[in-house]
Amino acid sequence: MQGHVPQPERQIVINGVGLIGGSIAAAVRRRFPDTRIVGIGRSETRLQAAEDAGLLDGWSTRLDASHVQDGVVIICLPVDMIVDAVRQTASLASGHVLITDAGSTKARICDRVSQDPAAARLFVGAHPIAGSDRGGFEHAREDLFEGRSCIVTESSAGAERVERTERFWRSLGCRVTRMTAQQHDRILARTSHLPHLLASVAAACVAEDQLPFTGSGFRDTTRVAAGSPSLWQQILCCNRDEVLSSIGEAESQLKKLRAAIQDGDSDVLQKLLDDAARRRSQLDEDS
Amino acid sequence: MQGHVPQPERQIVINGVGLIGGSIAAAVRRRFPDTRIVGIGRSETRLQAAEDAGLLDGWSTRLDASHVQDGVVIICLPVDMIVDAVRQTASLASGHVLITDAGSTKARICDRVSQDPAAARLFVGAHPIAGSDRGGFEHAREDLFEGRSCIVTESSAGAERVERTERFWRSLGCRVTRMTAQQHDRILARTSHLPHLLASVAAACVAEDQLPFTGSGFRDTTRVAAGSPSLWQQILCCNRDEVLSSIGEAESQLKKLRAAIQDGDSDVLQKLLDDAARRRSQLDEDS
Repeated sequence: MQGHVPQPERQIVINGVGLIGGSIAAAVRRRFPDTRIVGIGRSETRLQAAEDAGLLDGWSTRLDASHVQDGVVIICLPVDMIVDAVRQTASLASGHVLITDAGSTKARICDRVSQDPAAARLFVGAHPIAGSDRGGFEHAREDLFEGRSCIVTESSAGAERVERTERFWRSLGCRVTRMTAQQHDRILARTSHLPHLLASVAAACVAEDQLPFTGSGFRDTTRVAAGSPSLWQQILCCNRDEVLSSIGEAESQLKKLRAAIQDGDSDVLQKLLDDAARRRSQLDEDS
Repeated sequence: MQGHVPQPERQIVINGVGLIGGSIAAAVRRRFPDTRIVGIGRSETRLQAAEDAGLLDGWSTRLDASHVQDGVVIICLPVDMIVDAVRQTASLASGHVLITDAGSTKARICDRVSQDPAAARLFVGAHPIAGSDRGGFEHAREDLFEGRSCIVTESSAGAERVERTERFWRSLGCRVTRMTAQQHDRILARTSHLPHLLASVAAACVAEDQLPFTGSGFRDTTRVAAGSPSLWQQILCCNRDEVLSSIGEAESQLKKLRAAIQDGDSDVLQKLLDDAARRRSQLDEDS
């Protein structure tokens, strides 16, 4: 993709100006200063603050047809609210508009959108794998997506729209991979949703009076567990089947570790730890 | 302790000049430039390199009586090797010497040392809760212990030696807490050993071709899993009973999360995540 200059979109509408929506605004602002950025949200105060912070050119608490004549609409809401927002956007939008999202789960969202013909023809699901345990546009970063993976899901909206979605996310610095929504959910259950649950378990197993005796290892391992319980509850429920199957894999791995410790089988224990250590170290080598 | 000026030890002998031993040397060097620092190890090349790096005033591959006439001897070896090293040191040492360690488990070590009267009268167990997933004195840091907890275990070596041990670790910047070796192992199973196992499980559940789709959450959660499998195998086996009991607690917590996801009980799921999030957030407020 060296030397590729993406065609900027004339306008982007961001529905949900939090950490992700705010970071998209910041990244678009820096890369495509001529693109108009409109924020949609519930709170006038918050939207005005985001405009004052230089992230938005305009905002509204109510999407109307004038916002969606062309350009891209990105739904940056909690996963439970994405389908309704896509449907509402599609009901107002012209055929030139691309609707995409940044939700952490895909199969259920894409499936439900596909049941609404008006929405299905405009929507291509996406998930930029980037974030922070701190929400709100105040923590937005214009480089949040740089070098990060973004998964774009196959869609019945047609090849041209899928490619436009890929171009959009690539233009913010993402490495884009196309796959089915089911493949996305299967992978993310292991790379994100299960780790979140295990971090939460690690945090829950420490009593309050034991906290002073934690070190940097505990801090790292449990960091994500401080993330918003309401957002994560939605993500885990929305990807129920794959999350349950990944929990099964974790339980079986934990059982193997337990048996090796119980039996004092240091060779087996070391091999189990070694396999995990090598998998983890691979990540540092690759990046 | 404000304004307290600790009496520096005339000499410290560090048996095992890796990350922890090297960081002790660096911290002593900066705070007590007149203290002589001697390294004991297996590899002449490594010991000479540590001296060349400015960490040691002298070194030997063989401890002899001349090294242990007074001062402190700190055993910074893997937990499986600590008891033998304490015994060997005690067999050569004068009654002025204090022997302590930096091992991640305490009950088994203290119990075995207490069975050797010569060692028992000189040894006080300790565990500075500080480290890194990168070993070797090359990664030593003179501030590694600053503001970190150090647990000093109750000992039959007498109050004066326990206080001297506390002074030593406090003089490197540690916040020192005294407790029994059993209390130490019970706490560390939850604050360190279980989190390591859960990080290892999270790393093991991701397939190689899924690694490109990990984000910063996965990196944080699994970071410690890259730590030395042979050191961790020893730690987990050495603290077998408490580790097994902490695994039981984790399994039960995971089972609750699984049931809530299975039943689609978002209230229960959110409460479980919320309890863990609040516990984790407490850590950031406290520090």
